[in-house]
Order: sequence, then structure tokens, then C-alpha cells
Amino acid sequence: MNPDPDYSAAYVVLRTDLPGLEGNGLCFTIGRGNDVVVAAIESLCPFIVGRPADDVVRDLGSFSADLVTDSQLRWLGPEKGVIHMAIGAVVNAAWDLAAKIAGKPVWRLLADLEPEEIVELVDFRYLEDALTREEALAILRAGRIGREERIATLERQGYPAYTTTPGWLGYSDEKLVRLAREAVAEGFTQIKLKVGADRADDARRMALAREAVGPDIRIAVDANQRWSVPEAVAAIEALAPWNPYWVEEPTSPDEVLGLAAIRRAVAPVKIAVGEHVANRVVFKQLLQADALDFLQIDACRVAGVNENIAILLLAAKFGVPVCPHAGGVGLCELVQHLAMFDFVAVSATTSDRVIEYVDHLHEHFTAPALVVDGHYLAPTEPGFSSTLEPGSLRAHEFPDGAVWRALRVG
Amino acid sequence: MNPDPDYSAAYVVLRTDLPGLEGNGLCFTIGRGNDVVVAAIESLCPFIVGRPADDVVRDLGSFSADLVTDSQLRWLGPEKGVIHMAIGAVVNAAWDLAAKIAGKPVWRLLADLEPEEIVELVDFRYLEDALTREEALAILRAGRIGREERIATLERQGYPAYTTTPGWLGYSDEKLVRLAREAVAEGFTQIKLKVGADRADDARRMALAREAVGPDIRIAVDANQRWSVPEAVAAIEALAPWNPYWVEEPTSPDEVLGLAAIRRAVAPVKIAVGEHVANRVVFKQLLQADALDFLQIDACRVAGVNENIAILLLAAKFGVPVCPHAGGVGLCELVQHLAMFDFVAVSATTSDRVIEYVDHLHEHFTAPALVVDGHYLAPTEPGFSSTLEPGSLRAHEFPDGAVWRALRVG
Repeated sequence: MNPDPDYSAAYVVLRTDLPGLEGNGLCFTIGRGNDVVVAAIESLCPFIVGRPADDVVRDLGSFSADLVTDSQLRWLGPEKGVIHMAIGAVVNAAWDLAAKIAGKPVWRLLADLEPEEIVELVDFRYLEDALTREEALAILRAGRIGREERIATLERQGYPAYTTTPGWLGYSDEKLVRLAREAVAEGFTQIKLKVGADRADDARRMALAREAVGPDIRIAVDANQRWSVPEAVAAIEALAPWNPYWVEEPTSPDEVLGLAAIRRAVAPVKIAVGEHVANRVVFKQLLQADALDFLQIDACRVAGVNENIAILLLAAKFGVPVCPHAGGVGLCELVQHLAMFDFVAVSATTSDRVIEYVDHLHEHFTAPALVVDGHYLAPTEPGFSSTLEPGSLRAHEFPDGAVWRALRVG
Repeated sequence: MNPDPDYSAAYVVLRTDLPGLEGNGLCFTIGRGNDVVVAAIESLCPFIVGRPADDVVRDLGSFSADLVTDSQLRWLGPEKGVIHMAIGAVVNAAWDLAAKIAGKPVWRLLADLEPEEIVELVDFRYLEDALTREEALAILRAGRIGREERIATLERQGYPAYTTTPGWLGYSDEKLVRLAREAVAEGFTQIKLKVGADRADDARRMALAREAVGPDIRIAVDANQRWSVPEAVAAIEALAPWNPYWVEEPTSPDEVLGLAAIRRAVAPVKIAVGEHVANRVVFKQLLQADALDFLQIDACRVAGVNENIAILLLAAKFGVPVCPHAGGVGLCELVQHLAMFDFVAVSATTSDRVIEYVDHLHEHFTAPALVVDGHYLAPTEPGFSSTLEPGSLRAHEFPDGAVWRALRVG
């Protein structure tokens, strides 16, 4: 579905008059259209420029709500697509700023909030038939128990990861087998393969991967929306001999009813979805319809930390594990904070939970995500891990950075 | 929900080297964010500029698909929000061009196509569990019977309309009553009131409107997404004494499950939804879930004529009447063509079907929609009725048109 990505990002810099302090956020795209997200971010400037930084970071619930509920901008969604992604980048930049001011990583800033403060960050509109404010408070209050031990666990051993590195379409069979073996040697207990382009290729690659990693390593597959509902059922049944752990995005991410139908048809194979789910209202319905086994939050598709807190609370209410989507540009850096907050304060467990890890582009960040022995290490730097290296930023700025100039000369 | 709209449009001009011929399309917005849609339209230029006009109009299925399925741009949706609306404006402009070249209004150009040509225009991906290509063909072949009589009916008496003119929030009670009476005198058999801001106001205004129009005129109400699912059920029940005909957008347009729950709870009051529904996949599910009584297509939210044909076919398959959303800038002009095509070639009936009409901003179009005795007259001018008067275009162009300059001086 994404045959020719040109990994890109719209990068937000919230400048302040606090010495040396700025908030950074980003929206990952796969190339064309990055400028459209930039234009959407620029359309938010009137809501941001001149606002006292103290006010923003003191009330991030209102800051987020002002952007999400502006009636004229809302027309462009509502609460989906480019404008929602742009709001996400800005809201996440404000969280980065708040965490830098507080001197904490975002996961810890969130985990240190009281339950009453956390629910103030959430827009419960349209959620009440599945999750009330009072139910959210009860979940968060229960999440206080054992909090210190979980923080210590995170700081000691990190959060479990899985890797998509071996499984890209286009890799030779030899490379797939070699990378799958390496992943196991590096401590991963789950890998993921891309599927959906060709049925025979999928079966051959799945068989090779299973042979390479043995029966005990989980192999997830990712169809990136390639199938209709009946095609998905047939394609997943064809992979059953090699015991796929979950099937990710078997069809359109808008398919509440279709994903539920697929899930019923292919059990015990599990369904994972979320990287392209538009907002908390669609996630709510996926949960209500029993349409997914794993909920894959994304840091850059919904309206930032605030909406992701709503989604984490919904998942906790329905008892569905959250396994964040990552990769791209900066997604690993961002989602690790959300998953760790989930562990400390919401779900209170890492059972059946893993964060995706893809081993590229981390060198462009000042505090890159670190994965050791199949675990994300808990970030310690203040902020959201979303600040680009100044040199990378200069070199890749479109259209005048050195990388772009060299491409034009070439 | 939309308290302070500033009616705007992103306007597309497809220039050709055919003398005097250009294609015009638009995307209606309510103000802020219009520039974001413009940026999205500009991002489509590489797919359009330099393409032979003949190729475009000869294969509008491929033209639409090239835009909708581009993998990098698709990341920004997928198939929703700003990028999808921008594609809609461009695809509709191409239809305007095709119709001008053919010397026919768009409704007639569409109605003159063979069933086999029409299905070539449609992307059936993700629809197969509800509507196959073969089922679509069968619907269209059945629609050939009585075609000439229906064209004659349209040309003689037009297509039924209803009016939203009396019902805006903010009108005094006296104005509401006067406009409601005027609407009946003008031949309308259905009016619509905006509701959802205040429960007591809604009841008072509904009572006044019912008294003004009598028991036989249909009064629809439009909540513009103001309610959660339980709020909607309570609010609609409170209006029942005045016999509301349909309730429009009682909650989030993403709410497949919630709208179905509301519909079950408030029957026999009917549910209408669609102006903010993101794409054909969500419409499909609304139909599968029995979540709506009236499907309100919108000319500028989905990806243009091609996707709207898919939606008309889905509605026909499920036997749900299509009552297009209109108003704003140019929506009346555009949707009349789609509804008339539906009557001639798809549903083959106007029973229970009406097109919304709002009596403003038509003067800016070279061939404005004409409503007489409560009916849209069938357009006769070649094209999509989407060409702006040159003087209006010059005066309103942002930021340098005379209207904007005067606002800045003011």
C-alpha cells in the first residue's frame, strides 16, 4: 500500500522567551503532502503565537481543546486527516515544552499527575456511552496502586519491544531469514512481516520466517489495508499453517464492522489496528464492536497526547492491550512515552504489550529511542524525545537544506 | 457547532488549450482552513498539469483513481479530511470540463452513460462485502427502464427541494414563524430547523414552527453533531410532541454504532446523516448497520463525482433514499446534478427524496441553481454549475480582492 515512501516530517518549533527553551513536535508523513501538513500547522498560528508559555503548559487541556474544537477548522475534519494531524504535532510540541520546563521526560510528567488532573486533559465528548469521566477516574485511581514499583521496573528493564526490521516487502528471502535470526539473537521475542502484495510470496516468506525463528517467537503480519473484508479472511486463513500472531490493518482502518467480521472469522489469529484510525470516536467503536485484539496508538495521527490519553483510557476500560505503532520519523521516540505512561498509570501491566521498533533514522534526534535486549529503555532526558539534531534539521530542511540541494544538483 | 461560519471556498480552475474551455470545481469551507485546502489542491498539481485534457475527460475513472490512490498522499487520510476534499474539488472540476466539452449538464452527461461505463468510474475497493461490481451493474441496468420518462419529468417539473432558510439558530421567534410561513407559501413541503444549542429553545422553536406550518408540512431538525449518544436520545425524545420528520447529525458523523443505537431508540423519528461522513467506506457501514433513514451526500467532502456514484449505488442497494446536503457556497449548484442522475439512472424515484435548498450566494455563479415551487429546475447549461461569475471571483479572491481590501481598510 505504501510502495514508495519518502520519509518526511512536518516539524513544529514553539519558540518561547524562556532562555534556551522551545517545544518540538512533528507529524510523520511519507513524502508528497508534507507541505499540506505544514500549511495546516501554519493555520494554527493565530491560536498559539503570543500566548504565554506558562498558560499553555499550565492548562494543556484547554490548549488542546482550543485547537480541536475551533468550529471553522473542525469543518476540515471533523477531527480527522490533515488538520487533526497538524493539531497533534502542535499539541505534542506543547507537551515537549511542558516536560522540558518541568525537567522530566513526558512519560514521567504524565505519570506524576493526579488522576483528577489527567481527566482534565481529556475531551469526553462522544465517549460517554463507552467511558464516562467517573469511570476514567476510577481506572486512574486504581492505577495508583503499585505505581512506584512499575516506575522502578521501567527504569531497570525498560518496556518490551518488537521489531519490524526483518519483514519489509522487497527484501530478498536471504535477507529476511538473516534479519529474522538476528532479531532473535538481539533479544526480540516478536517480529513482523509485511504481507498483502502477493499471496504466494506471503506464504513463502512466512514459511521462511517461521523456519528461521522457530515455533516460540511471535510473527505478526501487517497487510497495510490491502484487502477487502472477504479477501482478508481468505488471505489470513492461507497463512494459518505458520501461526501468525496478529494481523495488522487487514482492511480499511475505517472498517469498524468489517474488522469485527474479519476478527470473528479468523480467530484465534488476532487483529491489530490503529496507526491510521482517525480519532477516539472510531477507536471507541472498534472496542465496542470487539473488532480488535491489539490497539495500536499512533503519536502523529490523532490530536496528540491529550487524545491518546482518551484512547488509552478507552482501551483500559475494554481490557484491550495497547501496542503502539512506531517507525517512520520520530514515532519510536514519541510513542515510548505514551506506552510507559500507560504502564505506570493506566493499564498497570506490560502483559501482551509491545512497542514497535524500527531501527532507522534515530540518529537525527538529540535523545534517540534506545532499545537494548528487546526493550525500550525509559527516556531520562526532559521532553518528548522529539527534538531534532540541529545539523540534521539544517541539512534536511525543504527546499534549501544541503540534502535537497544535492538531490537537485544530482 | 458552527457558530461563526465565514463561508469560503477553495476554487479550482483547470485551464486547457481548448479555446474558452476550463473546468471549475470548488471545496466549500467555513473560513479558517480554506488556505489549507488550497495547499492540498496545489499538492495535486503534479498529477494534473500537462496532462492532455482529452485523456482526462475520456477516462475520469483513472483520473480520480490516480489522485485517490497515490500512496504518499493517501497517508494524509486515508481517504478523508483535507486531502480528500481537495481531490473532490479537482475531480469535480474535471467533470465540469468533461460536461462542457460534451455540451451537456453533468447530470445529463452521467445519465447518458451506459451502465458498463458508469461502473468503470467507481472504486469498489472495500465495498465488496456490501456491493459488488455485478450488483452495481444490475442496479444500473434496471435503471434504464423508464429513463426517458424520468428525464422528461425532470425537464418538466424539476426535483423536489426542502428549505433550511427559516430555521437558523439566532433568528428571532418572529422571523422563524414568518419565514416558515413564507416557505410553505413558496411551495415547500418540508422545512428544517437547527437545534442542539439549548433544550428549552429547541422545544419553543419547534412548537412555534409546527404551529406556523400546520400538521402536514414536514419539519426536519439538524443538531450538527452537538450530542453524545445518550444526550441525542433524550433530546430527540423531548422534541417528539411536535413530530420531527428527521433528525440530522445527532452526534459525531464517525458514529456508525452510535447512530444505529440512536435510530433504534428514537424510531419512528428518522435519522439523516452524511454531510460530514468521510468516505464511501463509512457510508457503507452506516447502511450495513441500519444507522440512517436518509443518506445525505455532499458534493465537496468525498472525492467528487466518482465517489458519490459509489455512494448512490450503495444507497440504492440498501434501499435508502438519498437527500443531498446543500447550502454553503455552491453546494446547491453541485448536488442537484448528482440527485438528478440518481433519479434518472440509479434509484429511479424521487419518492421520499428532497434536495436541501438555502437561498443565498447563488448570485456568484454563472448558472445558479433555480428553485421554483419547491423544486430544483433541471440545469440546462453545459457543465457542473460550478463556475463563478468573473466579477465575484475577482472581488472575493483572497487576500487581494476588493472585498478583502475593504475589510482591511475597515
